[in-house]
Amino acid sequence: MAAMKNKQILLISRPAGSPIMANFRIVDADVPQPGDGEILIRTLYLSVDPYMRGRMSDRKSYVPPFALNEVITGGAIGEVLESRSKAFEPGDIVTGMLGWQLYSVAKETELRKIDPTSAPVTTALGVLGMPGLTAYFGLLDIGQPKDGETIVVSGAAGAVGTIVCQIGKIKGCRVVGVAGNDEKNQYLEHQLWVDETINYKTADVKQALREACPEGVDVYFDNVGGAVSDAVMPLINKGARIILCGQIALYNLEKPDVGPRIQPYLLVNRALMKGFIITDYAARFAEGVGQLGQWLAQGKLKYAENIIEGFENAPQAFLGLFAGENLGKQLVKV
Amino acid sequence: MAAMKNKQILLISRPAGSPIMANFRIVDADVPQPGDGEILIRTLYLSVDPYMRGRMSDRKSYVPPFALNEVITGGAIGEVLESRSKAFEPGDIVTGMLGWQLYSVAKETELRKIDPTSAPVTTALGVLGMPGLTAYFGLLDIGQPKDGETIVVSGAAGAVGTIVCQIGKIKGCRVVGVAGNDEKNQYLEHQLWVDETINYKTADVKQALREACPEGVDVYFDNVGGAVSDAVMPLINKGARIILCGQIALYNLEKPDVGPRIQPYLLVNRALMKGFIITDYAARFAEGVGQLGQWLAQGKLKYAENIIEGFENAPQAFLGLFAGENLGKQLVKV
Repeated sequence: MAAMKNKQILLISRPAGSPIMANFRIVDADVPQPGDGEILIRTLYLSVDPYMRGRMSDRKSYVPPFALNEVITGGAIGEVLESRSKAFEPGDIVTGMLGWQLYSVAKETELRKIDPTSAPVTTALGVLGMPGLTAYFGLLDIGQPKDGETIVVSGAAGAVGTIVCQIGKIKGCRVVGVAGNDEKNQYLEHQLWVDETINYKTADVKQALREACPEGVDVYFDNVGGAVSDAVMPLINKGARIILCGQIALYNLEKPDVGPRIQPYLLVNRALMKGFIITDYAARFAEGVGQLGQWLAQGKLKYAENIIEGFENAPQAFLGLFAGENLGKQLVKV
Repeated sequence: MAAMKNKQILLISRPAGSPIMANFRIVDADVPQPGDGEILIRTLYLSVDPYMRGRMSDRKSYVPPFALNEVITGGAIGEVLESRSKAFEPGDIVTGMLGWQLYSVAKETELRKIDPTSAPVTTALGVLGMPGLTAYFGLLDIGQPKDGETIVVSGAAGAVGTIVCQIGKIKGCRVVGVAGNDEKNQYLEHQLWVDETINYKTADVKQALREACPEGVDVYFDNVGGAVSDAVMPLINKGARIILCGQIALYNLEKPDVGPRIQPYLLVNRALMKGFIITDYAARFAEGVGQLGQWLAQGKLKYAENIIEGFENAPQAFLGLFAGENLGKQLVKV
């Protein structure tokens, strides 16, 4: 143990607008010692997620803000080095909110064991983890897609969006994906069987959506917000369901944005718009993971990962989310 | 019959922005003759409702636009003069979409008989009719108010708003009403037991709402939209429910309005926003009328009516809705 050196990535200042490298600092730290019932873990993969931007600001959100000058917490996968809990033993692969550090200590209730023989361990942070469950419950529970309906997905090539698109196809829907570059759209169309895609950076989004949705929009799974949503709203059908999963287009704005009022569209179409966060569905996670795992085993579900190597590159990987650099789940291999 | 003269009010041009008197014309017409299974009715009261503004435009809404140069249709109460249906007989008081005319003919399936001995007949257009049912199902089914929660009602002194406020109090909630003049607010506070009221024309609405809702907003029943809604959104609580019933502040705008984006508030608070129209609940109308009638009989529910005399004053009464002239249900006595 004496030879091990810990490193941590701290948030040292809150981003004003877009996050920058100077908001983060990598520091040396001691390797923590597990107490009774605790487990020492070596980090293998870090999850890099858009929602973490919200925690970097000092405003009300669904999770409290990160503290300044403390290690950034976030989903991760690790290997158990030492266990003072009967529930885990050295060599176990686990996932939990371990944080951006090489070594961490966690309580047994904060960890979930991963079976590395059933699927690649990284799926625990993607298709079989938070993003997959977010897609599953958001689309099926709030969206209630019916055979033949049209689903529009913003952020379609992201960790959540790629799964939403595929569940939409499994449910027999016409799926229209909106993403930020042509390579992503090629992937969506040719690998994930998405019916139509739109590059919001180069297309006339309103016109392209009208053409891609000749029968209107029944379900809108919104990861992005902003101008893409402005273009979707006039196309919604009677009884449409709009799932608010993320608003990444707005996260780095310093002032609240203005846009066309959406209430008239919701009113006239008796439509529903609902925000959610995945922890609302904690009691049904086993159902979600079970179904996603089954689709994965049956080859009905594919997943994409964008893995950046090197612990110290985590801040850069995080910034890349807002530049739309990732296809699928963004991970950092430690 | 030969002595009877019919008059009709036609929509002769679509309003550009706010409706004006020149959009309407009163014409003489023949008294229609009932065919087999039809009923001839003499109109007693006309209902004047904000939603009718939507039908005057040539845009997509939940009901088709009025045709130009035809009689305006709308809810009304009348007396049966002649019946070629076994379901009705002369002297019966009925309600239906009779239109702005002195005499009309309707099929028996288009009429509902009113018992004039159980409540004043005008209640069939108000507290025991469409506005009451709108308040009842919107607040209870979508809003799901719980004891001790805070409800904000915009358009609180209107036909729907006055009932929403009172049902909120019956359900044990703190009710905050927003209306456009102090007399209305006095009525809400002193007659309907509303906890706090705000005059949106004279108050700093944001500040006033913050003070009136120290524990945030759990349910927002929105009849108005626009700036009042902008002020409510930042105050919504986790799991808030927002009922979109009307957007009268926007009905007369010639271009879609812009405002602060609301999706971030809905997302962060996992809140729900839902539009509805009352006909979605047609299968449950008997339940609603039953409960509203019981509250009325028990003295738990009051209702206000603003009755203008004279058939030819219907257009003026309609314009008055947008000037906020009515306290409670706006009716025209023919």
